Amino acid sequence: MEAAEKANVAAPLIKRLDLSRGDKFDTMLQGVLDVASLPDPLGNITFANRLDDGLELYRVTCPIGVLLVIFESRPEVIANITALAIKSGNAVILKGGKESFHSFAAISGLIREALEGTEIPPGAVQLIESRQEVSELLKQDKYIDLVVPRGSNELVRSIKSNTKIPVLGHADGLCSVYVHRDADVDMAARIVVDSKTNYVAACNAAESLLLQRSALQSHLPTIAKALIDAGVSLKVTPEISESLKQAGVEGTASATIASAEEKDFETEFLSLTIAVAAVEGVEEAIKHINSHSSKHTDSIVTASKEIADKFLNGVDSSGVFWNASTRFSDGFRYGFGTEVGISTSKIHARGPVGLEGLTCYQYQLRGTGQVVADYVGAGGKKEFKHENIDI
Amino acid sequence: MEAAEKANVAAPLIKRLDLSRGDKFDTMLQGVLDVASLPDPLGNITFANRLDDGLELYRVTCPIGVLLVIFESRPEVIANITALAIKSGNAVILKGGKESFHSFAAISGLIREALEGTEIPPGAVQLIESRQEVSELLKQDKYIDLVVPRGSNELVRSIKSNTKIPVLGHADGLCSVYVHRDADVDMAARIVVDSKTNYVAACNAAESLLLQRSALQSHLPTIAKALIDAGVSLKVTPEISESLKQAGVEGTASATIASAEEKDFETEFLSLTIAVAAVEGVEEAIKHINSHSSKHTDSIVTASKEIADKFLNGVDSSGVFWNASTRFSDGFRYGFGTEVGISTSKIHARGPVGLEGLTCYQYQLRGTGQVVADYVGAGGKKEFKHENIDI
Repeated sequence: MEAAEKANVAAPLIKRLDLSRGDKFDTMLQGVLDVASLPDPLGNITFANRLDDGLELYRVTCPIGVLLVIFESRPEVIANITALAIKSGNAVILKGGKESFHSFAAISGLIREALEGTEIPPGAVQLIESRQEVSELLKQDKYIDLVVPRGSNELVRSIKSNTKIPVLGHADGLCSVYVHRDADVDMAARIVVDSKTNYVAACNAAESLLLQRSALQSHLPTIAKALIDAGVSLKVTPEISESLKQAGVEGTASATIASAEEKDFETEFLSLTIAVAAVEGVEEAIKHINSHSSKHTDSIVTASKEIADKFLNGVDSSGVFWNASTRFSDGFRYGFGTEVGISTSKIHARGPVGLEGLTCYQYQLRGTGQVVADYVGAGGKKEFKHENIDI
Repeated sequence: MEAAEKANVAAPLIKRLDLSRGDKFDTMLQGVLDVASLPDPLGNITFANRLDDGLELYRVTCPIGVLLVIFESRPEVIANITALAIKSGNAVILKGGKESFHSFAAISGLIREALEGTEIPPGAVQLIESRQEVSELLKQDKYIDLVVPRGSNELVRSIKSNTKIPVLGHADGLCSVYVHRDADVDMAARIVVDSKTNYVAACNAAESLLLQRSALQSHLPTIAKALIDAGVSLKVTPEISESLKQAGVEGTASATIASAEEKDFETEFLSLTIAVAAVEGVEEAIKHINSHSSKHTDSIVTASKEIADKFLNGVDSSGVFWNASTRFSDGFRYGFGTEVGISTSKIHARGPVGLEGLTCYQYQLRGTGQVVADYVGAGGKKEFKHENIDI
């Protein structure tokens, strides 16, 4: 603490660095126990087929291999990530924010000590210190199987551009809420306000609000007032501006109403600001979101299951929500114990990534001397049986 | 055909280009019907959890999005890949080898015609012609979600180096067979010969043979003779060479025995050549394979389930086989109908990639107005229930 104060570290960061604050330390320990108590993600058979008598194919879950996880200056994160890595059977190279380095070093020392009493080689968890080492490691696509960057958009983008190793994570969190005309007005206002204001710096916070055009009179005033009351500035299209004027809704000194530019619908404000536009209906909302959002999490508020299903099946994001805040997009809330990050990639793991996203599978074929030359397609006459094996 | 002959296309390639040869055309059509009859890979719920009353989380399988598939000059492949792409709900951009271009254009014309009678937009399947277009498309990581290159190692490597889009496939197919001392000698010989010779140009053909040191006297002579009889040249370590001499095994004019260099154990010969070495036992075999193979497919021949399990769980390849030829590593043989390629990546899909590898999932959260501010961890007191929902 004193060292941090001497080094002119900002007060909020010092708060974040202080593991003894409140129940942070106990929560960290509980997180490790939670991960330990999750079902074993390894060695599970997810597909089994008898190709022929005495020739059985099993798809078995296994670790990915070596992970490189780059994360922010939050001392408790090293314990969570290490727990996930060990439980999923992966080796992990950890690089945390430099402000937490001494905490990381102390915790990782304890982790190594604890590992010495187990079958896991202590080298399976390694802490590195410098940025230089990171750029060297990003070249090791032969030895490192997955990079998980957590942190600023710039950090993630720069890592994606500088490595051939697959990257799991997200740069932007551009989430939207769409309000359909049959939505309960108060529910819509609560969901929009929660999505925007519960934690503005989070990747699952909403940055855009879309309203059905025919709901502008009925829904916009209440929702806009609720946002302004919560201190949120609105960036609005001319149509929304007109509608607010007609309803007599005005901004305040701190929660202003201003004109939106096109780029505001592709901006992660990370602050009490939201871009607002009208769309004709759910189809246009889907189109708008698919072309503007970052495929993270988008929510619809509607009383109609049919409209909701159209939205959930049409929006190409890792999380698609009906009548719920975008902020639910989170490993802890999803019940995964904890998460290593949230992925907006379209392959491997999407959304909050827990244990399962840190595993892959391999095909184990158990035969009794079979060769393909005996089978059709490779010179022989034997047909494959391809019978499901009950798992 | 005449055009091909005029253009000095090599005879084996002309054979491959000729769709009317044998039952190739009918097999192509059957392949499409096989894919059509596979279970729908979309909209399947693979995880369901009640986060709280009236707040249900579902993980639902969905298409990846837009695929770019680059493949060799085999006219039937366009039909297989298109069938897989349509069945998995993906849009696909196809680029086939230039020698098949006229066949591809004709088949893709028919595909578009067929699509016009369906709800699928005909633009969902697009054929492109030039290499220039490919390099432009490889830059479109915002719009293309997955690249599947099939073809030479150089092609795959060059694509991996030139795109930020995730690449699914394999450059090298460096497969090995390890023979343990308790293996049935004849079974071992048949598996080694089939793995090496059934189709030497295939990625799942064996390139290395490892024998347990204590099995050199008992197993090596029979296996080596079987390989030589099948026309295979051996590249051997001094120890193997000595052992062959003692047993009186000699090469022939076309199937020679020569000294192996270290690099021979990392070479995909794609010809009737195999590198041969001795290892102390299964642990050393695992180490050798994990450090030399391309993580494609590796096989052990042993009578012991315990030794086999050690091998299957220790070798870090997409396919790990016991008492079966490496050549079984194939989508058709695995019962997937057909395959879009074989992946040696450690994330997303591994091994032969069929329909399932062309899908991902999204989390659908169905609520009744919930906001996170009411729950623990985000300002509220409500606890999550996290109860499994029976699927």
